[in-house]
Amino acid sequence: MTILTLISSNKMFGGQHQRYRHFSNRTECEMTFAIYLPPQAENGQKVPLLYWLSGLTCNDENFSTKAGAQRLAAQYGFALVMPDTSPRGEMVADADSYDLGQGAGFYLNAIQQPWATHYRMYDYIIDELPSLLAQHFPLNGQAAIFGHSMGGHGALMIGLKNSERFSSISAFAPIVNPSETPWGIKAFSAYLGDDRNNWAQYDSLALLAYAKRKLPILIDQGDADSFYPEQLQPQKFVQSAVKQGFSVEFNLRPGYDHSYYFIASFIEPHFAFHAKHFG
Amino acid sequence: MTILTLISSNKMFGGQHQRYRHFSNRTECEMTFAIYLPPQAENGQKVPLLYWLSGLTCNDENFSTKAGAQRLAAQYGFALVMPDTSPRGEMVADADSYDLGQGAGFYLNAIQQPWATHYRMYDYIIDELPSLLAQHFPLNGQAAIFGHSMGGHGALMIGLKNSERFSSISAFAPIVNPSETPWGIKAFSAYLGDDRNNWAQYDSLALLAYAKRKLPILIDQGDADSFYPEQLQPQKFVQSAVKQGFSVEFNLRPGYDHSYYFIASFIEPHFAFHAKHFG
Repeated sequence: MTILTLISSNKMFGGQHQRYRHFSNRTECEMTFAIYLPPQAENGQKVPLLYWLSGLTCNDENFSTKAGAQRLAAQYGFALVMPDTSPRGEMVADADSYDLGQGAGFYLNAIQQPWATHYRMYDYIIDELPSLLAQHFPLNGQAAIFGHSMGGHGALMIGLKNSERFSSISAFAPIVNPSETPWGIKAFSAYLGDDRNNWAQYDSLALLAYAKRKLPILIDQGDADSFYPEQLQPQKFVQSAVKQGFSVEFNLRPGYDHSYYFIASFIEPHFAFHAKHFG
Repeated sequence: MTILTLISSNKMFGGQHQRYRHFSNRTECEMTFAIYLPPQAENGQKVPLLYWLSGLTCNDENFSTKAGAQRLAAQYGFALVMPDTSPRGEMVADADSYDLGQGAGFYLNAIQQPWATHYRMYDYIIDELPSLLAQHFPLNGQAAIFGHSMGGHGALMIGLKNSERFSSISAFAPIVNPSETPWGIKAFSAYLGDDRNNWAQYDSLALLAYAKRKLPILIDQGDADSFYPEQLQPQKFVQSAVKQGFSVEFNLRPGYDHSYYFIASFIEPHFAFHAKHFG
């Protein structure tokens, strides 16, 4: 059993918001995650789990403090896990820019050095973390996944590749086609190398064709988001998904930007969406 | 008219969350505040105003990002102003500790040097800021005041001294009797000097007897708050207020601590309380 070290525990909306540290066998470093356990879990009930994946520069604390999500997790009786966005530490490779290295893991398994040693966030999120959570917390096996920006990419990509593991996917301002947009091209070149044949396995637009189950998808995008026209372009993904028979709800939100103020404004319908698909 | 420089504006819950900078004639330095304008204000309606006063170490951003208050401000149609907790800048006196100097203004007018030059937060909050807000924003003149910890002290103290200006007062884990508790004794000694005759004018417990109107008061306190037994002791204030004919609701919340996770959990009833007293 992986040893979890409790960093902090704060009562919130009748449940507990906790941070844990543990050594990861996938990223080969100490990892930190936050989990919110709703009051229902404290009463011995097993509850569904929402995975939240954060964007560039974030760690487990951004969504924890800024999104207002625990109120809804308590209301719906969902646990909420908020992992970090990359491996961290002095021994872990890093870059000077905000969009590569620590805080910018892109939820993939790197195959190029110096990244390949620790940057195995895909395995961490889909393999090690779920097993660890199942061991330590009262979860009923139902799961959904959502995220923001780079984490929206993570949620869509991981959800599509593991459609048997989740009921639904949602995203705020996601990167949907990293092989063709600047942040993605920079990160994929560094982590995966120049051979673009290795990129499609982590590109949500390309993955649509390979999903075993066509999970329902919800995407919110602010039209005043400065990253929207170049980095994000979610409509490409939405159009392709609809053509391929996915049920996709896409909301373009007038005047909203890329910040957590945008996420907080629309987090409630994302909970309602995932609740509906848990059934 | 005071010139306001807009630092940022983010659409949130249909309204705008904005940060402004301006030169203050009271603190004689640049001050920053945040204001949330609900959708009702954008539609040309004049709205009531809630003043939020933050605690030690905070600036205008802590409550803005962590409390989940804008959702409720939008729902109720209230503007919400979040000033800084002290004067700031290289020219402004400071101390090495978190509980004195910048980030720890205690909402009073200092009379001892080196503090007296800039630390005039009382005048700033009750005089300059309201006038500036009335000039620039669509406010209907109704106001209430609330805060946390040092800001709970600020809300109670300012509300009691200016009871004709507010409809109601509320606080999370407030300092209620700074003349007799360690944070307050340290700050009052530095800012006001050793003559305790100068302290009572900023001590909420002492001010109860002098309030022109007995405003309704709501206080929430977590019983797992490590500052509760020594620094806060809200019951002293509650008992005295009730004896003097105030209507006080005091909620001791089992298991909650001093953090914004506690504030977020109970911010909703504070909005309902102030809404009821706006009528």
